[in-house]
This record gives sequence, structure tokens and C-alpha cells, in this order.
Amino acid sequence: MNKMDVTPYDVKGIVDYDKLINEFGINKLTTKDIKRIEKIAGESHPYLRRGIFFAHRDINWILDEYEKGNKFFLYTGRGPSGHIQLGHISVWKFAKWLQDKFGAEMWFQFTDDEKYLFKNNLSMEEIQNWTHENMLDVIALGFDPKKTHFLIDTKHAGIMYPEAIKVAKKITFSTVKSSFGFTDSNNIGSIFYTAMQTVPVFLPNVLNKKNQPCLIPLAVDQDPHFRISRDVLEKLGHHKPGIIHAKFMSPLTGIDGKMSTSNPDIAIFTTDDAATVKKKINKYAFSGGKNTIEEHRKHGGNPDIDVSYQWLQYFEDDDAKLKKIHDDYKSGKLLSGELKAILIEKINTFLAEHQKKRASAEKLISKFIYS
Amino acid sequence: MNKMDVTPYDVKGIVDYDKLINEFGINKLTTKDIKRIEKIAGESHPYLRRGIFFAHRDINWILDEYEKGNKFFLYTGRGPSGHIQLGHISVWKFAKWLQDKFGAEMWFQFTDDEKYLFKNNLSMEEIQNWTHENMLDVIALGFDPKKTHFLIDTKHAGIMYPEAIKVAKKITFSTVKSSFGFTDSNNIGSIFYTAMQTVPVFLPNVLNKKNQPCLIPLAVDQDPHFRISRDVLEKLGHHKPGIIHAKFMSPLTGIDGKMSTSNPDIAIFTTDDAATVKKKINKYAFSGGKNTIEEHRKHGGNPDIDVSYQWLQYFEDDDAKLKKIHDDYKSGKLLSGELKAILIEKINTFLAEHQKKRASAEKLISKFIYS
Repeated sequence: MNKMDVTPYDVKGIVDYDKLINEFGINKLTTKDIKRIEKIAGESHPYLRRGIFFAHRDINWILDEYEKGNKFFLYTGRGPSGHIQLGHISVWKFAKWLQDKFGAEMWFQFTDDEKYLFKNNLSMEEIQNWTHENMLDVIALGFDPKKTHFLIDTKHAGIMYPEAIKVAKKITFSTVKSSFGFTDSNNIGSIFYTAMQTVPVFLPNVLNKKNQPCLIPLAVDQDPHFRISRDVLEKLGHHKPGIIHAKFMSPLTGIDGKMSTSNPDIAIFTTDDAATVKKKINKYAFSGGKNTIEEHRKHGGNPDIDVSYQWLQYFEDDDAKLKKIHDDYKSGKLLSGELKAILIEKINTFLAEHQKKRASAEKLISKFIYS
Repeated sequence: MNKMDVTPYDVKGIVDYDKLINEFGINKLTTKDIKRIEKIAGESHPYLRRGIFFAHRDINWILDEYEKGNKFFLYTGRGPSGHIQLGHISVWKFAKWLQDKFGAEMWFQFTDDEKYLFKNNLSMEEIQNWTHENMLDVIALGFDPKKTHFLIDTKHAGIMYPEAIKVAKKITFSTVKSSFGFTDSNNIGSIFYTAMQTVPVFLPNVLNKKNQPCLIPLAVDQDPHFRISRDVLEKLGHHKPGIIHAKFMSPLTGIDGKMSTSNPDIAIFTTDDAATVKKKINKYAFSGGKNTIEEHRKHGGNPDIDVSYQWLQYFEDDDAKLKKIHDDYKSGKLLSGELKAILIEKINTFLAEHQKKRASAEKLISKFIYS
């Protein structure tokens, strides 16, 4: 088993989320916190109930301000280097829910500079193509075009770089070295980059002459960027962002590490057709079932390590149905193949709808890009 | 005496230019090189004849291309952190001569980001103010508004940052560390900055879809930026720049180090009035004369260490007149006070004209800023 190592540039080993909370200095999302979010939202969200969003920074300050009438805006992003897979979708679906329930503006950053600086096998042209493709997925999720603003780092460098140098001036190489595991062999653009990722935390306030808090829904590996910038932001006269952290959706092949797009067989992409989804899940989804039907009927399966069950937590909103699947699988009543079939059906239903919306997203892109 | 140390961020000790040629791996400007420049220009320039411009990179390639009909463009710049002093003016006067004689476009970079990132005592507002003030001086020198384009790093970040990351991707922290004497305590913006300084070497070609060579007239301390980027540029499909290097104009107080704007008494600014110029030179200009008039008449002065004589090399274009001053000073015929009086008159004549042009430069700024 690999040692756990979680940075924006590498996730290794089985992730121990309690340990991560400790290491990152973030806070566990308590039942009380969740109740408070749900109360204001007027609705419960399965990703909160199920601990998929599990930690936070300053969520109570965000809600305090909201209740005082000072709305937060949302900020999240995407490094456009490949297809969108279901792990990305889960964070953004939740972000979309936050937009709907809290009437929040969303600033969505496409970090094309980051991908160019960190990936050796991608040209700027390919990255621009992925930026375009990935935008279609974000739009397909139904974000409000009037309240959603895409920032593309190279396209919006004119407004971002002048702010990024203010952040950069207050961060030393020592700091990024220890936070990201960089060495003297890192290229100087990759060293600078974290400053660009901090900018959307306060740029909307600069552009609109406001003073709103920023709430960032993100996968927990992105936290180190903001851990670095939180002190800096106050020195520059800006609020620290609030953050709500998601666990990683596990790869099809098992719960070790986060799902990556570099191996197409262990992830499901938003562009996969129904037959591909079926094939991938049947072939690769790690099973918590027993080796034979007889044994399975007798001893039952283990939903805690079964990827199909884990993934259903993202796609089956009905708690009672999910519990029945859990219990039936554990008792041996539900077989691994049957569990997979349920997941395949759920994902293909979601993707059919998503792909339909994605196909008509093209004409909306210009409404989403900030100008 | 301090050990010689020359980087864009520090110049210490008495500069040994032959040693610098060796250390930097640049080439001495030979008589043959100078003759060739003069032949094409159709005119000799005192700064070439007098060794003020003393070294180069690839000047013969620049001239080869020129003779083939492929004109070069010029690129130089200014870090806007204070008044312009005569040392800056000397490099730009020569650049202006190159523009006139070779019909060259000039791209003039104002590195406001650099000054913000490297100076702790200057706010961005102050730097913007210096940018404005310094532009007036550049315009006052008579650059052709149709052929001269100001790039201001923060203002033009929209076109510069996307190119800078291409440069940055190919430069490691190790490299900037050894070239500039940086440490892990450097801020991450300062580490990235050299990439921004490389961009104007090729940006005009990107913007205009051309493939012209770039010639950079600069003070020799700026060479390390381009030493780093020369290999990178070829990998990105761009030409390496040609460079022509100037010696430092010495401070009033003596020939140790380069003239700095941080001590106002050892430099003369373009905004100094005639009385201030007179006072500064009389009070501070290091003299190569003897202690008493009698001794001076008997043994003569030493023009090699006399700052007034050194400075006259920049302001007295007539070789015969300059030689007479040299010989008269060396023989003891010309006294230190008289030598200073000659310099004062020369500088005040130049500044009277410069200040007149500077006063009417304001309305031209928008013609010079690239858009």
C-alpha cells in the first residue's frame, strides 16, 4: 500500500480523510454545520448527508454573512487537460445546487496556464481544445448563464496577472516548495501559478467594487493552494475564502487514490456512450462481492469497498433505495452483477440527459465567458 | 574594494568589463564590428567610437539579415521606480540613433510588474506614476511615434502572459537561482518575472506575423535575462535576440558601481534644474585633479578617474574638442573647476531642450502605448 500523499499535483495511497483534516488544518463538517446549511437552503443534499462533502474552512462565517444579507459568490475551476469524468461532475453538481439555493454568482476558472505548465505531453492548442470541450460540460449541468462567469487564465490574463503579482509578492518559493512538493527543477511558471489560482477569490469584488465572501466547493486535493493564500489575502485587504471540501470519487478499479483521466479505463467520461459505460463497469468496477454466487448468497458482499455501491452514493438520491441496495448487497440477496446493472442504468440515464444538454451548449459559450 | 558582482538586481564593485565579457560569454565589439555598423548607418556614433557600447551578441547576424533586406526591430526597457537619470538617457539616445539610421521599429517595455515584485518600498500606484513620468522622458528623446510601441507589463498582460508561460515552462528555478543570485526566500513573482522580460524579443513577430530579428541595446547588467532565454527562444521557434551592451555611466561620486537613483546626490535626473545640476556636479563629481592649483598646474589631472571628464564622453560629440579637454586636463592647463564648468554647461544645455520636449510629451503618450 502506498503512503498517503495529497497535493494538487499528486494523490497517492488510500486517502485517510480524518488524517487529511488534521494535516491540512481544515474542519470536519459536523452534523450541526450540515443542518445549518440545509436549513438556509430549505433542502437537504445527498452529498452532505452522505459525507461526500466532508470538511470545510469558515463555512459558518460564510453563513453568518449570508444571514446578515451579504451573499457569497462561488468559485471553482477546472484544469482543462482531458475529458470530464464523473468525479468532476459530482463537485460541480453540488456547486450548481449551491447556486440555485443561495442565489450565488459562480466564477468558474479554466486553468489552461496550469495545464500547459505542468503537463509535458499537451500543446497549448490541445489545451484550448479541452477548455472548449470542458466548458460544454459545465454549461450542460445547468448553471445560470446570467450568474455564471467563465475565467480562462490566458484569455483573462489582462485582468488576472496584475492581481496575481500582488498575491505572488507575498509567497516565497520555500512555501510553495513545502506545500506542493516542488524542487529547484520545477519550471518558473509552475512556481508562479498558485498566485493565478488565488485571484478569483477576490477578483469579482475588484471588478464589481463589492466586498462579498467567496465560497469554494472543491475536491480536497486543491486545498493547499488556498491554505497558502489565506494569510496573503488578508494582508491584501481581501476576505479569506470559505471552502467546502469533497472526497475523491474512487477509480473504477478500487478505492486507492483519486480517479484520474490518464487511464481511460478506470474513469467514466461524460462523452462515453451507453455501451462503453456498461463495458467499463462490468469489466473494471472493483467488486466487494464473493468469488462464487454460493458464497455471496451465504456471506454477502462488502459495500464499503465495492466501487459500484460507492458510486451509487453519487447517483441514487433516494436514501431509502440506497439503503435497501446496501442491505441487500451485504446480506447476499443482491449479486455483484445486479448491483453493477443498477449503477449502469443510473449513470446511463444521467449521461443521456447530460449529453443532450451538452450538444446544445455550444451556442451558450459566449454568454458564459466573462467580458 | 568590493568584489565585482553584476546582475540585473545588483551591481557591486569596480566593473572590469573585460572580465565581464568573459563571465557573461558575450563578445567584445571590435573595430571591424563598429566600422560595419557605421558603414550601414552612414554615420559614426560617439558611443561606439568611445567604447561606451563595448560588447554584443550576434550583431553580425543582425547586420547580415539587414543587408539581406530583413530589418531588425529594437527592444529596450525601463523599470519604472524613480526618476530617469543620465545613465538611462545615454542608452536610449543610442537606441534612438539606431531607430533613425536603420528605420527600425522600437518596442519599449515598462516593467512595472518587476518593480512591484522586487521593491518593498513602492506601491503599485507609485509605480504607475513613475511609469507615466518615465514615458515622458522616452518620448522627449524624439523616438518616432509611428514606429515606437510602449508595452506596460500589467497593462499588456493579456498579450504578454500567454507568451510568457511558454518561456517560463522551459526555465527551471535552478537556472534563475544561479543567474540572478535568488534563494528560496524570493517571492514567486520575482522568480517568474524573467519570462515577462523575454516576451518582447518575439512578441512583435507574433502580433505582426513576421519573422524579424530583435536587437536589444541595453546596459550590460540586463544581459543575464537574455542569456537565460536565448536557448529557450530557439526551442519555441523564435530567433535569439542580438544584443549591444553599454557600460555603466559612473556615479558622480566615482567610478565604483553603476549610477543608482536611490541616492539622489550621486545621479543627475532629467528633471533637475540648472542650479541643482551645478550644485551636484560642483559638490559631488569625483575629481581626478590635484589637491592644490599649484600641484595641478605642475603634474596635471587624471581624466581616467575624473567623473566630469568621463561624463563629457557622453555629452561632447566633437572628438577634437573632447581630446583637447583631455590633454589640457592631463597637462594641468585645465583646472578641475573649469572642467566641471564645461560639463555643467553641456548637461544644462541638453536638459533645457529635453525638459522643453518633456513638457509637451504628455499629449503624445496615447500614440506610443501599443494598442
